[in-house]
Order: sequence, then structure tokens, then C-alpha cells
Amino acid sequence: MAKRDGAERPLRELLRVRPGEHVDLGARGADALPAGPSDKAAGVAATAAMADRLASLQERLYAAATAGDRRRLLLILQGMDTSGKGGTVKHVVGLFNPAGCRIKAFKAPTPEELKHPFLWRITKELPQPGEIGIFDRSHYEDVLVARVRAVVPHSRLVHRYDRINAFEKALADGGVTLVKVFLHIGYEEQRKRLLARLDNPEKHWKFDAGDIDERAAWPAYQRAYEVALEKCSTRAAPWYVVPADRKWYRNWAVGTLLLEHLEDMDPQYPPADFDIAECRKRLLAT
Amino acid sequence: MAKRDGAERPLRELLRVRPGEHVDLGARGADALPAGPSDKAAGVAATAAMADRLASLQERLYAAATAGDRRRLLLILQGMDTSGKGGTVKHVVGLFNPAGCRIKAFKAPTPEELKHPFLWRITKELPQPGEIGIFDRSHYEDVLVARVRAVVPHSRLVHRYDRINAFEKALADGGVTLVKVFLHIGYEEQRKRLLARLDNPEKHWKFDAGDIDERAAWPAYQRAYEVALEKCSTRAAPWYVVPADRKWYRNWAVGTLLLEHLEDMDPQYPPADFDIAECRKRLLAT
Repeated sequence: MAKRDGAERPLRELLRVRPGEHVDLGARGADALPAGPSDKAAGVAATAAMADRLASLQERLYAAATAGDRRRLLLILQGMDTSGKGGTVKHVVGLFNPAGCRIKAFKAPTPEELKHPFLWRITKELPQPGEIGIFDRSHYEDVLVARVRAVVPHSRLVHRYDRINAFEKALADGGVTLVKVFLHIGYEEQRKRLLARLDNPEKHWKFDAGDIDERAAWPAYQRAYEVALEKCSTRAAPWYVVPADRKWYRNWAVGTLLLEHLEDMDPQYPPADFDIAECRKRLLAT
Repeated sequence: MAKRDGAERPLRELLRVRPGEHVDLGARGADALPAGPSDKAAGVAATAAMADRLASLQERLYAAATAGDRRRLLLILQGMDTSGKGGTVKHVVGLFNPAGCRIKAFKAPTPEELKHPFLWRITKELPQPGEIGIFDRSHYEDVLVARVRAVVPHSRLVHRYDRINAFEKALADGGVTLVKVFLHIGYEEQRKRLLARLDNPEKHWKFDAGDIDERAAWPAYQRAYEVALEKCSTRAAPWYVVPADRKWYRNWAVGTLLLEHLEDMDPQYPPADFDIAECRKRLLAT
């Protein structure tokens, strides 16, 4: 298990939602600093300092897959509008070699997607062995917006949690390490970020007037998240609640979670499947 | 047109293969430094200094697409084994936001792919509006390895150049800016890089004994590249020959080509499609 300097326990243990645990998001500070750096300069430096190890572990994972290792990692990012899903991809996933990343942003389902079971579109975007997959939103939308907006009847909704757990268990059994991250921001922080988008013409394209209507449903969304975190934080696929009011802390925390999981996976470069001396001789003769 | 400091002409004009031009790769130095930085420290610094402008232009391109701009960029990387296609993706494409990149490495065609016309698998991987697509190998393999290994009869091969030109013209007309880069390395440099892979256990996974056999066909491959560059460097989709014996120069040159093309495209943030004052008022009332 990865240990961080000066920390008794790995971050994943501090942020993980335990199976059966009651989740009260209001009691979890969106601006908390549960471990690690305590100011922006230190946080930015600590995140940058992870880059080489993250990239090196990713290369090992990728290399191992060329020799049959089926393992891969899937980062799932969920959170309210402006919680920083896109920023996390840019600043944390950006530390990896992009060739080994498979990134998918899930939007509202298309008419084609709606014809299929809700997990259908998800299975098409899963990472291959050796890859790092990143979902910006995911199948959890189908128990979040679907619950808040009553898109499906409650009788169908309740089965979805079980189906998600079975699906994720099968993924884990197949070699997928799931890192499910809820980016937890506060109500006032969201207002601040939406206002910042309004105030900056270079951010207008990110603004959707519908976000203000969604904001009116804030308590219902928080409750929907609590239910999803409670029902779907399993041993095979735990949820992590990352305090995300501070962007630098969010980046450090997600980077650290990825690092801890990759270090646990401990992927190895495969041994040569050819005669090194013989190849060297042939090469020198060319 | 983008101008670089101290350069009379943009790099794209220096490296471009002109329509109708005779291409002699032997006469083009793989270790040349036709413009820009002249040592590694300066080259690495100059590439790093491009990062913010590249990322900013990419965001504008992406933002413009949300308002209907159909434009996108497609970087095609071709070159002999060890020429640095993967390294270019890591070090140059890695400067972009990964969420806006669509990267595809084309391998030997699968049985399924072989059932279809050779451009079939290519069309499925094209970037969407606002995206930056990156092909590590491409449809050009179908006039390179296909020519050297006589995979298809010559009578079929000759039509492929025309089909490629028509295909790329249609892409350009549809808003795709093509940046086709041949990473030009020398015969001795390839030997050095293959030996380096043999000497480093962490690089054995990248080594394929078949690469030594391919190396025996070096002159035929160089000729196949010359033909492809001559026949398929069009006004709509020019080829650029990047001297790639020095990795730092290759990275700087590809970065600069991307920058010059993105600056020419000059994508713009779209204007707000909502009432800013009204949204601000509604938001403050929440």
C-alpha cells in the first residue's frame, strides 16, 4: 500500500466511502484539507512532482498489456456543474501520456442510446488492457439526473443500483481497477464559478442558462449523490469523496488517488521474448 | 501567416513538399536544423514555451465548435520504426488538453478491416469538429508497406494515391486542416535506437525482432515514401518532412507546425447566446 510522506494512512483510506456507511455530504467539507499540502503553492508543486511517477507507472501498465496483462484503470469523475471534472482531466490526466488514455465525456443520452439499456453506451467506451480510461460523467447519471428529474419510474430506478454494482464487480474481476471520484463542491462555490463564467467572455461558451435551473434542484441532487455513494461504494469499486472547492487541492487529491492505485497494481515491464544477443548480432550486421 | 522570431519564412514553408516537386530523401538531412533552435537546451525551452499558446488555441477551436464551427485539425505521423511517432505524441500532443484530442495508432489491418476498402477504418477515427486528431500511422501504410511487401498488385496500388488525394481533399473541404508529417531519420540513427532498445530491459517491450527484417528493406521503404510524398503532397493536404534524428528538434518542429496551422485557423470563442445581465440576476437570486 502506498504511503505518503507525513501521512499515517493513504489518502484512499481517508476519502473512501465505506460499504454500509451513511453519507452526509453537508457534514463533509467541500473546502476541507483532510491530508497533504495545506496551501496552493505546496499543492501545485506536489502535483507537478507526481508527474514522472504517474507517467512511468502508466508506461509499465501499457507495456505489461503487450505481454498479456489484462489490467487497466478506469477513473470515473462525477460532480455538480462547475465541480471541475473538465479541469481535472486537463490538469491531472494531462500528466499522463495521452496515447495511453481513453477519455469519454458522457452527455445527455442520444435517441439511439435511449433505445438501449443504460449500461450499453458505457461498455463501448471502456479502456482496453493497459489503458487508463477516464469518464467525465458516467452511468451514474442514470441514477442522478434520472432520479432528480424522475426520468424513469422509481420502480425501475431502484434496480439500477444493483445492476451498477454487478456491472462494476464484473469489470473489477476482469482486471479493471475502478477509481470513482465525486468532486464535492459547495453551493456558494458553484455560484462563484457560474458568475465567473458570466464575467469572462472566454468562458461564455461553457455557460448554459439551464445550469441555473439545475441549481434550483441542488438539495435533490445532493441527496441523489448520497444515495448513489451509499449504495454503490463497494469493496470491488469504492467511491472517493474529494473536497473540490479548492482546485489545487482537487488536482492533488485525484493525482494522489491515481498514484496510490497504480502503485498498488505495480505493473511490470515484460521480459524479452527474443534472443537479445542474437538480435544484437543481426542488427550490427545490417 | 504565423512568423517565428528571427525567421524569414514560417517553418511550414521550409519543410513543405511542393506539388510536383521531386523528393530525394537522401539529399534531405535527417539531422538538419533548417530553422529555429540550434541546440538541445534551446530546443527544449522553445517547445515548452509553446505549451500555453497551443493549449489556448486548442480551447478556442473546441469552444468554436460548440457554436457550429466545423473546423478541426488532423496530425498524421508517418516514419520508419523508431522514428519517434510515439515520442512525438507523448511530448508534443501531451502539451494539449487531452480531452480535446482523439489519438489513434493504426496497426496491421485486422481480418475485419481487410474486408473493407482501405480508407474504411480511417473514416471511423476522424476527429470531430473542434477536436485535434492524431494518427500514429495512417492510410499511408496502404501505399508504403503495401508497396514494399507487394501486398496488393501494382495495378491496384497506383489507384490508391488518387483515392487518397480525393479523400483528403474532401476532408479539407469539410473543415479538416491536415498536417501530414514524415519523421525523417537516418539509417544509422535507426540502428542506434534499435540497439538502445536491446540494451534497456525497460524498452524490450517496444522491440520486435521483425523490425530487423523490415530494416533490410530500408531502400525500398525510402523509395515508397518518396513516391507517396511526391504524389500526395497537394495544396489541400501538404506533406512536411521533419528532420528527426534529434528528438528535441523533432518535437520543436512538429510543435511549431501545429502552432502555425492553428494560428492560421485563428479560431474564436463564440459570443454568448444568452442574456448575461438576466442570468447574473437570476443566479444572484438563487
